[in-house]
Amino acid sequence: MLKQINLKKKAEWQDYDDRMAHLRIQMGELQRKCKELGIPVTIVFEGFEAAGKGTMINKMIQPLDPRGFQVYTMEKEYEEDMRHPYLWRYHIKMPARGRIHIFDHSWYQGLGDGRLTPEEVRLYEKQFTDDGMVLIKFFLGITKKEQKKRLEALDKDKSTSWRVTRKDWEKNKDYDMWMERFDKMIVQTDTPNAPWTIIEAMDKKYAICKIMTTVAGCLVDAIGRKEKGAVRTEYAEPPLTDDLLSGVLQGVDLSLDLEPEEYKERKKVLQKKLGILHNEMYLKRVPVILAFEGWDAGGKGGAIKRITQSIDPRGYEVVPVASPNDIEKAHHYLWRFWERFPKDGHMAIFDRTWYGRVLVERIEGFATEQEWRRAYAEINNMEAHLVNSGAVVLKFWMHIDKEEQAERFRQRQETPEKQWKITDEDWRNREKWEEYEKAVDEMIVRTSTKEAPWHIIEANSKLHARIRVMEIVVDALEKALKKIK
Amino acid sequence: MLKQINLKKKAEWQDYDDRMAHLRIQMGELQRKCKELGIPVTIVFEGFEAAGKGTMINKMIQPLDPRGFQVYTMEKEYEEDMRHPYLWRYHIKMPARGRIHIFDHSWYQGLGDGRLTPEEVRLYEKQFTDDGMVLIKFFLGITKKEQKKRLEALDKDKSTSWRVTRKDWEKNKDYDMWMERFDKMIVQTDTPNAPWTIIEAMDKKYAICKIMTTVAGCLVDAIGRKEKGAVRTEYAEPPLTDDLLSGVLQGVDLSLDLEPEEYKERKKVLQKKLGILHNEMYLKRVPVILAFEGWDAGGKGGAIKRITQSIDPRGYEVVPVASPNDIEKAHHYLWRFWERFPKDGHMAIFDRTWYGRVLVERIEGFATEQEWRRAYAEINNMEAHLVNSGAVVLKFWMHIDKEEQAERFRQRQETPEKQWKITDEDWRNREKWEEYEKAVDEMIVRTSTKEAPWHIIEANSKLHARIRVMEIVVDALEKALKKIK
Repeated sequence: MLKQINLKKKAEWQDYDDRMAHLRIQMGELQRKCKELGIPVTIVFEGFEAAGKGTMINKMIQPLDPRGFQVYTMEKEYEEDMRHPYLWRYHIKMPARGRIHIFDHSWYQGLGDGRLTPEEVRLYEKQFTDDGMVLIKFFLGITKKEQKKRLEALDKDKSTSWRVTRKDWEKNKDYDMWMERFDKMIVQTDTPNAPWTIIEAMDKKYAICKIMTTVAGCLVDAIGRKEKGAVRTEYAEPPLTDDLLSGVLQGVDLSLDLEPEEYKERKKVLQKKLGILHNEMYLKRVPVILAFEGWDAGGKGGAIKRITQSIDPRGYEVVPVASPNDIEKAHHYLWRFWERFPKDGHMAIFDRTWYGRVLVERIEGFATEQEWRRAYAEINNMEAHLVNSGAVVLKFWMHIDKEEQAERFRQRQETPEKQWKITDEDWRNREKWEEYEKAVDEMIVRTSTKEAPWHIIEANSKLHARIRVMEIVVDALEKALKKIK
Repeated sequence: MLKQINLKKKAEWQDYDDRMAHLRIQMGELQRKCKELGIPVTIVFEGFEAAGKGTMINKMIQPLDPRGFQVYTMEKEYEEDMRHPYLWRYHIKMPARGRIHIFDHSWYQGLGDGRLTPEEVRLYEKQFTDDGMVLIKFFLGITKKEQKKRLEALDKDKSTSWRVTRKDWEKNKDYDMWMERFDKMIVQTDTPNAPWTIIEAMDKKYAICKIMTTVAGCLVDAIGRKEKGAVRTEYAEPPLTDDLLSGVLQGVDLSLDLEPEEYKERKKVLQKKLGILHNEMYLKRVPVILAFEGWDAGGKGGAIKRITQSIDPRGYEVVPVASPNDIEKAHHYLWRFWERFPKDGHMAIFDRTWYGRVLVERIEGFATEQEWRRAYAEINNMEAHLVNSGAVVLKFWMHIDKEEQAERFRQRQETPEKQWKITDEDWRNREKWEEYEKAVDEMIVRTSTKEAPWHIIEANSKLHARIRVMEIVVDALEKALKKIK
């Protein structure tokens, strides 16, 4: 694809200046319109070394209102980046609705060095474009000869010579090999929802004009679709048959219990082990994510407390998840969770999770059916990425029955220092028990993957539940650490 | 102070368990009350190595609602930290109103290694306590013998031995020297608004009980004051006499102009220089902060554009400052600016700044008189810190007269693609011209420091103004780079 392109195209329009003047005004207008309509825009710049990415980005942003865009230079990875799952550094920088974020180098570096597969890249991009993002990808091409010429010019100039490294010269020598690789990269990731635009960058005037025309075209298109209320037609998973769905929760044995004596003993042993394992995972730099979901009053808090009691607070964080704030709402729904994923050696314990998308958001109608149906695959992909990056991911569903919940609600209301824990919302949710049951069933079936299966905890007995959770955590940490040794 | 303390105190209360049970319930209640009243709480833990900071923090947070607190481990500095002004890593982690942030190690490390003076620490803390923060500082003390014992125990245990480094053993050997240093540190920074509490940490039960009792006491106290609407009596600068204030803006020669021909020529030369200097400051890792203030339509945007046109977008960011969002509002007013201060080698251009506190917030009554009066010193301290950390800080006031503003407003309204730039608010602000004039006068007098003086730009002529700004930037960068060579 790239190989067939004539990189030497020139700006031969007689009305070049007029075109550019018009484009500049248009860009400002389109930016305001996108802001108004809440369309997030991501523009990726990749290309050959010295193809002029910096210059092009600078020219492109001049007509934009600085309140609405941001440029990210992603070539260098910092320690914080390297201590997180690979996509973390990109995900947290994704634009909120109405903003334009420009990436100089992007996740395609990860495709280049094998940390991502083409399939992962396509799915990564799809979740955003499905969510309404305009994703524009530019590849800037120059010839081998031109690249050499530019490197020499940079090298000669005292103020820029430090920028030219041996690696750059090597890349020039290996130009043909790089051409092959880039070509393949483009072919593999040129999708209808996020196509590549190749920019012939020998002539700077031609290049900037093509870039701005492309951006303007994409935005006009997106604005038109949004104003018409058109929804992208996307893949929606068929609902499972009722047979397949029912029974996941029905089969849970809620009679399991534990004597207080035995509980105390086992807790002591498990907490000691946990403390030791937590030190080891810190030392070996394993990131751990514990995700707690469950019925209201299902005992999430109590189980979490039994874990944190014995471990060093400098190595864990409890992340309580409530309804998203305004900034979070303006982003892709997974953004706020990516923000909190732990760096290696640390543990993040989520009290409620990204599964809110297919539970409360589904039931309360905060997400459309298309949105929550899409979420199963998006979540599976995300969790697979976390696990493949070396994280331990454990998901718990704290399961109680309706009677037990009623009893616990009553207790909370009768204990003065616990009254604040029970709200009208809890009672309203309770009325939707059957709906939730169906949603939980489907969630467990659809998102129990080999990378991150669900653990359903029989939680009518708090004592039993806490011990089970700790056992599972201890077991998983031991296994993960064994793999490293 | 520390030296006179008997570190061997023990928990000899017979009712220890009851006390603790009560404290735990009380802590939860106080946290909820602080949240309700919007009181930000910062708790600092410093102390001897192996004094048990981690254990104490963990015990203290158990009764807290994880939705409202956060623990920060600050011992290790990351590359991002080191590339920012020293206080940056702390400032951006300061709690929003209603939250509790706990620091394991803090800015006292900077006092220890000479990056901060005691005076700077006191002023740094004062700005927060003046703003209503409860700042609790714990120092955990153990004896030399006990420290040795604990290090030996950690060293013996396979899962913790990696934690004990040669440095720790050295610190134990030099215990007396450290005792002297810590004692001095505490004496120098024990202020009425942010006093130290020394925790005798030989006996863990005694230590945690004293910590929790102290926290509870401070919170009860703060809640009481807040509920009574009591305001801390704080230092308020006397207003300047009218003599001293008037005339700063009056003396500006607004007749200065430039011929278009000359403008073009000089712009070209200056932009070329800027491009080169920007590369050099990137290479030499100098951070640059340009702060633009001025009358509406004073030409801030145009001046900024002439600077950014010639420099690499990967090395600068334009930060437009509008009214703060909810999250920003919940923090100290300087917090949102600290968040955007550039790392070394980068340039941040602020289109409006922290001076909003003494301009729009003063005039519209968003800040009380005490608040905006306090701000002059707070801002001077902040800027001095930035400059002393190696940053170039340039502040511009874009000055036009009232007639010129009227003319520019008219032009904007008549040009279709500029109409969005002019709002009702601009007209309202214009009616308050004289009030603003007074506020600007006072701002310039009070915050023209040797570290960061104001540059008043005669901006009735856009061409003249742009060239002046570029000249000042070029000049300052040249000087800063010369100093490094």
